[in-house]
Amino acid sequence: MTPSRAQGQPGNVRRGRRPAGEDTRAAILDAARTEFSAKGYDASSLRAIARLAEVDPALVHHYFEGKAALFVESMSLPANPSFLIDAILAGPREQVGERLAGTFFDIWDSPQGRERLVALIRSAVSQEDAARMLREFLVREVFGKVALSMGVPQPQLRAGMAAAQMVGVAMMRYVIGFEPMVRASTEEVVALVAPTLQRYLAGRSD
Amino acid sequence: MTPSRAQGQPGNVRRGRRPAGEDTRAAILDAARTEFSAKGYDASSLRAIARLAEVDPALVHHYFEGKAALFVESMSLPANPSFLIDAILAGPREQVGERLAGTFFDIWDSPQGRERLVALIRSAVSQEDAARMLREFLVREVFGKVALSMGVPQPQLRAGMAAAQMVGVAMMRYVIGFEPMVRASTEEVVALVAPTLQRYLAGRSD
Repeated sequence: MTPSRAQGQPGNVRRGRRPAGEDTRAAILDAARTEFSAKGYDASSLRAIARLAEVDPALVHHYFEGKAALFVESMSLPANPSFLIDAILAGPREQVGERLAGTFFDIWDSPQGRERLVALIRSAVSQEDAARMLREFLVREVFGKVALSMGVPQPQLRAGMAAAQMVGVAMMRYVIGFEPMVRASTEEVVALVAPTLQRYLAGRSD
Repeated sequence: MTPSRAQGQPGNVRRGRRPAGEDTRAAILDAARTEFSAKGYDASSLRAIARLAEVDPALVHHYFEGKAALFVESMSLPANPSFLIDAILAGPREQVGERLAGTFFDIWDSPQGRERLVALIRSAVSQEDAARMLREFLVREVFGKVALSMGVPQPQLRAGMAAAQMVGVAMMRYVIGFEPMVRASTEEVVALVAPTLQRYLAGRSD
């Protein structure tokens, strides 16, 4: 574990398993997502992330300023907010809730999407960077923009209520593991949650 | 910090500020709630709890088997579930959602109720005792029994969705601090959330 070993350059592969440079960086980010998802921010360590990525701990410090910086970068979003909003708003107004729920569960039911979501939620309860990411991205940029474009009263409060419902479903289904929520199909969950999102964000459809 | 100092008996007050015996135990439980609420389970330490309670750390080990045992006892619920359910079910069926929301916010808007709730949520993401308490108490004993007594289809899944909404509101309002949810009055939050709980647990009222 000498410092010189930490200075790998692309093409200069020293450990066999992981090439240096961008691939090392990507391996550290992958390991960070896995570790933050399993343990949350507080209980995750840079040493454990390095072990999981099969790199020298010095390399983690070489590529990232510290745990907070690594967290923020590893949580960089799997989808562009404006892409999400376009998908949600494209179509009849009375189906906004259904499209929103469908769009989210499409992301969350992929292994990578779920891992990032669980890491974000586990971390948001104790870590301000993660809490800010939830507030600014999920609530304001996605739900807030949908509510604004629907012209409902109290759009930010309604965005908060809709986000609360989705964060709560994610807690029950993926984090806390309440059995009937874990077992339910995506379709069953969407069928129950869509009218709730519809009422908050676009007013009742019926 | 000698061990003899840790063996206080009722009436045998050695440190002046805190009487020994049951009062010491209660002071440790109070301090534990404050610490778990502020930091969550993982980042809380018995040493910090002892410091906050102004007792010798040996006393914490004297009264409680360890961090998990102290956690479980400090989270013991501020209200009896059957009392909650009676309050929710007493009255017209079409107001179940409103009574449920009102009953919960009455508890949550008291400082002690809010502190326990935040501690429970912060801890449930990483600690199985807290996750189990949420699943077994909040979801099954309260929401599940309401859904069952209303005779809706899929009562446990619907209980999970209703609990998800309430846990999500608690996250946004008390833990993550999304500003429009923090600023909203209890009445505004209840007005938005009651129809959601009503639909999940008792079917639509209109």
